[in-house]
Amino acid sequence: MSEATISAKQVKELRDRTGAGMMDSKNALVESDGDVDKAIELLRVKGQAKAAKRGDRAASEGLVVSYVHHNGKVGALVEVNCETDFVARNDDFAEFAREVASHVAASAVKYVSEDEVPEEDREAELRVLKEQAAGEGKPEDVQEKIAEGRMRKWLEETVLLKQKHINEDKHEGKTIEELRSELSSNTGENVVVRRFSRFRIGE
Amino acid sequence: MSEATISAKQVKELRDRTGAGMMDSKNALVESDGDVDKAIELLRVKGQAKAAKRGDRAASEGLVVSYVHHNGKVGALVEVNCETDFVARNDDFAEFAREVASHVAASAVKYVSEDEVPEEDREAELRVLKEQAAGEGKPEDVQEKIAEGRMRKWLEETVLLKQKHINEDKHEGKTIEELRSELSSNTGENVVVRRFSRFRIGE
Repeated sequence: MSEATISAKQVKELRDRTGAGMMDSKNALVESDGDVDKAIELLRVKGQAKAAKRGDRAASEGLVVSYVHHNGKVGALVEVNCETDFVARNDDFAEFAREVASHVAASAVKYVSEDEVPEEDREAELRVLKEQAAGEGKPEDVQEKIAEGRMRKWLEETVLLKQKHINEDKHEGKTIEELRSELSSNTGENVVVRRFSRFRIGE
Repeated sequence: MSEATISAKQVKELRDRTGAGMMDSKNALVESDGDVDKAIELLRVKGQAKAAKRGDRAASEGLVVSYVHHNGKVGALVEVNCETDFVARNDDFAEFAREVASHVAASAVKYVSEDEVPEEDREAELRVLKEQAAGEGKPEDVQEKIAEGRMRKWLEETVLLKQKHINEDKHEGKTIEELRSELSSNTGENVVVRRFSRFRIGE
């Protein structure tokens, strides 16, 4: 499809849904033959490629954001970093930080990313899962596979970035990592969930 | 002074300033010859004696409270415990928790209480302070004393409960531990600052 056959309405829809720039949106629509959903995918892939390049740029600005449940029994504190104070003042950035804080308060995550899981914790968990699979009388050649599958599940339960945001309707079932990556694409900056704390009364 | 000469106005003032009960306030005023300030001291000593007895009762209710500075660059999350949900809903309790959170955000504390300072950190700090005192050419017999004095100062800088609340005017230069102890007296429950987190951007 040529640029001439892309309607302003399509461009506006794509921009509204992704926050991408005018030219990037037009180019993506040309490449997707006017299919907005496909164009979103294209933009995301490109955005992630750019974001990967940004990965080693310093993210030392950002926001500290808290969320405390209205009953005062559980709360979270989160630090999200970006590269410039300009982006730290961006509404989408603040919104993402708030969404991460509310997710942390509502979940039982222990680590920001898989990298942070201590090797001994991972090994201990895998050992337990293998013993469980053995205890269930599974044949030896599938025990390993079952344990690995459960290990992935365990990581999804304990690692923040791997989790689908609790507000699945609003975020279309996207993971925190996907939301982070989109924000990074849209702002053009490296975005890092640096750390979080979560307190629940009596825990 | 007999009970008959204590005015209702004095009792009211004492109760307003301490939150103590009617009979405790009257008795304290009789004992202090009608001197309200002295009566406050008496109530505090008695309150602390009661609070010490309460020290081993379970404090598993309470509030999680956060404070984030308006620029979004520094924030704190605090858990304060009491014994019953009734006290957790008390305004003074909530106010204390908020005051602790704002203090933590504004200070550079590392531990809640002196008990939490790891023995190796304390020893390392004392070693450095002794070397400093030696390096300053002080006679050997006073080096130890100088180091110990500086150690006390270091503890005051790193231990939350030992710090004067940042709002010295409002809290008359009282330490967090003094405010905690007063709240414990006034509520009749064990009050415990359980834990805190403090995030500052780029730290």
